[in-house]
Amino acid sequence: MNIDMIEAAAERAAGHVRRTPLLSSPFLDEIAGRRVWVKAECLQHTGSFKFRGGWSAVSALAPDVRAKGVIAFSSGNHAQGVALAARMHGAPAVIIMPSDAPRMKIDNTRALGAEVVLYDRATEDRDAIGARLSAERGLTLIKPFDEPQVIAGQGTCGLEIAEQAAEVGITQAQVLVCCGGGGLTSGIALALEAKAPGMRVRPVEPEGYDDTARSLVSGQIERNAVTSGGLCDAIVTPSPGQITFPILQRLCGPGLVVSDEEVLRAMAAAFARLKVVAEPGGAVALAAALFHGDRIEGDDVIVTISGGNVDAPIFRDALERFGG
Amino acid sequence: MNIDMIEAAAERAAGHVRRTPLLSSPFLDEIAGRRVWVKAECLQHTGSFKFRGGWSAVSALAPDVRAKGVIAFSSGNHAQGVALAARMHGAPAVIIMPSDAPRMKIDNTRALGAEVVLYDRATEDRDAIGARLSAERGLTLIKPFDEPQVIAGQGTCGLEIAEQAAEVGITQAQVLVCCGGGGLTSGIALALEAKAPGMRVRPVEPEGYDDTARSLVSGQIERNAVTSGGLCDAIVTPSPGQITFPILQRLCGPGLVVSDEEVLRAMAAAFARLKVVAEPGGAVALAAALFHGDRIEGDDVIVTISGGNVDAPIFRDALERFGG
Repeated sequence: MNIDMIEAAAERAAGHVRRTPLLSSPFLDEIAGRRVWVKAECLQHTGSFKFRGGWSAVSALAPDVRAKGVIAFSSGNHAQGVALAARMHGAPAVIIMPSDAPRMKIDNTRALGAEVVLYDRATEDRDAIGARLSAERGLTLIKPFDEPQVIAGQGTCGLEIAEQAAEVGITQAQVLVCCGGGGLTSGIALALEAKAPGMRVRPVEPEGYDDTARSLVSGQIERNAVTSGGLCDAIVTPSPGQITFPILQRLCGPGLVVSDEEVLRAMAAAFARLKVVAEPGGAVALAAALFHGDRIEGDDVIVTISGGNVDAPIFRDALERFGG
Repeated sequence: MNIDMIEAAAERAAGHVRRTPLLSSPFLDEIAGRRVWVKAECLQHTGSFKFRGGWSAVSALAPDVRAKGVIAFSSGNHAQGVALAARMHGAPAVIIMPSDAPRMKIDNTRALGAEVVLYDRATEDRDAIGARLSAERGLTLIKPFDEPQVIAGQGTCGLEIAEQAAEVGITQAQVLVCCGGGGLTSGIALALEAKAPGMRVRPVEPEGYDDTARSLVSGQIERNAVTSGGLCDAIVTPSPGQITFPILQRLCGPGLVVSDEEVLRAMAAAFARLKVVAEPGGAVALAAALFHGDRIEGDDVIVTISGGNVDAPIFRDALERFGG
């Protein structure tokens, strides 16, 4: 993994991946006690940064390999990112999802042109199904984060942050990134190491799912006790990856951890002050900037809103409780 | 009013007014039956396009005039746009609002640095208060739409539409614009006349407040029977302006009219598919693209979301009824 791979991914992405805006609001600055700059990846195609990694991985394949198709395991943002990237390349995509995944996510992934294969979590082995389909059809597996071309794609977000921050005169800042398996966090960290060395990435996680924060403290890969059921489950993974963790360890500052209530408050603030829709997992970095300012340094802080794929009832709940 | 004024406004705006993104979603395309491109002005500073006009008008003043301050009558988006533009110029702003305006709007306008002067609608004369303050302090009145420098500022949105559409290969399209007094609509129409002559602007209004559509039919300025109380009241004015109407008449196609239910559906679609917050008045053009496709021509349609300043209860209601 290096900056050359990220720059190559950016070249392949030009004209296809959206350059999302860097937003701000004087009202957020006031809450945070410093200037807050928000990289709104919820405005990316398919509503999350995952399209960057999906595009990068699909576009990096040799044409004859790509033509056979790609496969991914996901019921969430990675599924949609890979599905749309494949469709835009005219390549088939198979997405393997649990049969109890929300109907809406299954429908959305199908609507983006993917073949959705459902399996029963209780009785079937997801990996075995994937291996069989891949062997039969010659599909290429696209992993959600521990995959160099996926990390390179997420890193294009970091290139944009470096450019957009420079446009507003910022070269020194902490950059708070919503962190699951660490694909976005490590990609941004690598991009900023090369393009904006005065910036330091801080991974942000929800309470109870702080595997990365703990791994950075202990110096080895730690696991979450549970990996589902939380408000922020879109960004929850069992542990940081084999490829991502060494990058995080080398480049990132201490992790930050936020509560579910802080996440809902941040979603309401993004609604009221930025006019964007943040999903819970996508709001953890903004929550840290707004409510954990004592753990952050500098006059400016940059945060990612990593996605906006939230079901309406959860969003309504955030507004009802904290929307003013 | 001409393109030179708009280009001069764009030069003054560079680095201060946000270049908002042109968004799209395959899901919206499917509903509309054509490709839909959304100019997301809800992501502009202060949450609406009004900041463009405010910036243009304040920045066009001679420094000694500007230093005395500006004044505006508004309880809504124009107030916030003028207040922030003045603050960013280091100039005082006085905003005159009815004393029964929502607390939140008064507080927001004050938080943006403006002096808010409240008046009693039943017993006091707004214009007399404004005239007295202006005379005493030498304030310059910034009208909300029927003012050349304000129209020039809104026209910068049209310059961006022409550029961004060309970037995705579009030179022929109808451009649906949320229309109140016609400042944004006429500004965009003038910009596109010069920069993208294959495009045609269509004003869009809410049912019951279709003064512009009726004026375009009759060939003279028509008035709304009522001008308050509607869901979309942010874009409701008594009639098109003396300056804006002749421009609309010369350059715009027939007006489109949408129902309140269509507006709420469009707000829910923008939430689910674009991850942006649209206010009711800001969603009328998207509603027309999604639900009145039979009245539109072409493979592509461009729409503005003109603002996102909606109170949480109304947004929650849109999601509860139509958010899936």
